[in-house]
Amino acid sequence: MTEQGLSVMPRWPLAACYVGDRTVTLLEAEQRRPGAGEVELDVAYTGICGTDLHIVHGAMDARVSLPTVLGHEMSGSIAAVGDGVTGWSVGDHVTVMPLDWCGSCPACRAGHTHVCHNLNFLGIDSPGSMQGRWVVPAGVLVALPPDLPSEVGAMVEPTAVAVHDVRRAALRQGEKAVVVGGGPIGLLVACVARAAGADVLVLELSEQRRALAELLGLKAVDPAGCDIDALVADWTDGAGVTVGFEVSGAVAGLDQAINLLAVRGRLVVVAIHATPPPVNLFRVFWRELTLIGARVYDRSDFEEAIRLLHECAVPAARLITRIEPLSRVAAAFDALESGEAMKILIACGEES
Amino acid sequence: MTEQGLSVMPRWPLAACYVGDRTVTLLEAEQRRPGAGEVELDVAYTGICGTDLHIVHGAMDARVSLPTVLGHEMSGSIAAVGDGVTGWSVGDHVTVMPLDWCGSCPACRAGHTHVCHNLNFLGIDSPGSMQGRWVVPAGVLVALPPDLPSEVGAMVEPTAVAVHDVRRAALRQGEKAVVVGGGPIGLLVACVARAAGADVLVLELSEQRRALAELLGLKAVDPAGCDIDALVADWTDGAGVTVGFEVSGAVAGLDQAINLLAVRGRLVVVAIHATPPPVNLFRVFWRELTLIGARVYDRSDFEEAIRLLHECAVPAARLITRIEPLSRVAAAFDALESGEAMKILIACGEES
Repeated sequence: MTEQGLSVMPRWPLAACYVGDRTVTLLEAEQRRPGAGEVELDVAYTGICGTDLHIVHGAMDARVSLPTVLGHEMSGSIAAVGDGVTGWSVGDHVTVMPLDWCGSCPACRAGHTHVCHNLNFLGIDSPGSMQGRWVVPAGVLVALPPDLPSEVGAMVEPTAVAVHDVRRAALRQGEKAVVVGGGPIGLLVACVARAAGADVLVLELSEQRRALAELLGLKAVDPAGCDIDALVADWTDGAGVTVGFEVSGAVAGLDQAINLLAVRGRLVVVAIHATPPPVNLFRVFWRELTLIGARVYDRSDFEEAIRLLHECAVPAARLITRIEPLSRVAAAFDALESGEAMKILIACGEES
Repeated sequence: MTEQGLSVMPRWPLAACYVGDRTVTLLEAEQRRPGAGEVELDVAYTGICGTDLHIVHGAMDARVSLPTVLGHEMSGSIAAVGDGVTGWSVGDHVTVMPLDWCGSCPACRAGHTHVCHNLNFLGIDSPGSMQGRWVVPAGVLVALPPDLPSEVGAMVEPTAVAVHDVRRAALRQGEKAVVVGGGPIGLLVACVARAAGADVLVLELSEQRRALAELLGLKAVDPAGCDIDALVADWTDGAGVTVGFEVSGAVAGLDQAINLLAVRGRLVVVAIHATPPPVNLFRVFWRELTLIGARVYDRSDFEEAIRLLHECAVPAARLITRIEPLSRVAAAFDALESGEAMKILIACGEES
């Protein structure tokens, strides 16, 4: 065991940690052997997510313990396997569905383990993947096709979010949908909705993000630069869209999404509105709309995300602005904060 | 034709009208023969609805034209049949589904005629039933069982609202549901939900309304007088209720309804929130809730309402505080305004 232990010691024993005071810094990573039921991963890439930015803003200080290792969008391979783990071997290409549920709360008993009342979200409630080696319960592993580039593998988690959102919308072939907000999740939702057969329009204020949407083959408009009500009325023969995705997190975006919906339209509220926003419930009544909450994903969403990425139906790699070494993680957070970058992956397995 | 015309002249040619300035008064009713495709009804009873109160408050002044004949919850019998009307005879007991749709707008084309973009709601957009005789398009008639008391027949329309709300919730046998607000519609929703097999709890601040709920065999609690979160947690083994109906129209009631829902819970927003209220979308996200708009009803809701009333599964007659003659309509509005009465029917066919 000692020899095996030595063989899996991390080469770059640093972890990107939020330490409070809006600060991300590299600290020495905890080094431990995988216990029973656990595996140790060589992390290839970890994407920086909007949630990581929220954590660093201090918005989740009541939830995270400091210092906390960030990161939950990752790809990598198995470095070591703990006792009792079956079905996985050293070298397997994997990603992680970073949800560890209790199995006994009312949500779990009802079959909704992904929204477990006592959910341990890896990278928020327990250490994340922004480090060279990461020990996780084997139950969170998801196999990646060997030929899927690791950069794309790190995009599986956000793509699974989008798959879940589209599934919650019960989107049908041929439906017209608006996606309000063209950030990483918004564009992934748009791509997944398109792959599901919808006719999709992205509403995005930023010219840079609209350009990226168009690079992905999506239609994108500036809702502030046109009469969006007239445009959608024209597009839908006066009916409105049957499906909306609110991904802006802004009250104005939410309001717009509701206003653009057809009778019996469904709006998936993807963005997190931490403060209760005013919601046009009169319109919800008048047009018999449905507002649908969506949170994370389940294993089938991960599998569908992998399929869509593997078949290039969702060109997620184009969302990656650049890849940075672990040593530049603080600068990467700054770049995302400024809006200059869309998605940055942190290379966790290489010397910085 | 003249003789036939004379035979159907109303005996009491007065109509209860909203004339602006929070005033309901009796004015001379328009007297006309039913045209092609129309019928003339002898109105037995017309219930006063919350919407009528809203109209009298002036909240719908932009929509109604003055003076407007109020009333859309009615029972009666056919007094005369216009040209081209088939399937209906003088003397038939009927109620009216007061929706007259265009048939060509996007909502109608999608099959959602009840929320037609150009809906003519009888009693709001065109003259209502608070008069002795009422001419309506034959298409709005709904047959009543001959042995259904006319007082109960006047409760079909609000019961159909409740049936529609329960249908929108997709309520399943054995589900636990809260109804927030125990006014006439809230109690009807509770009764219909119970008839659908749900275990129902009514939350109502007024002691008088809770007492009426209990008279209907419903469980009712004062949410201000107990720890409602703990009560519902205990009742549902910590899960929360799977279905809620927001019938209070109050921000606090809406908030409470959202907080009491289980993971994947559905909330039907029954009350009309004219001003966009703050909505706890974080909770909607966290528990993957669904908020569902519901408006009026369709013919199947009317038929189900009649069945439930006929079988006494919904004891709607108990909601009727009293019956007043047309001459006392203004006082009846005052009594409802003060909260002293739950439901008042106006006897439209008798001399006042």
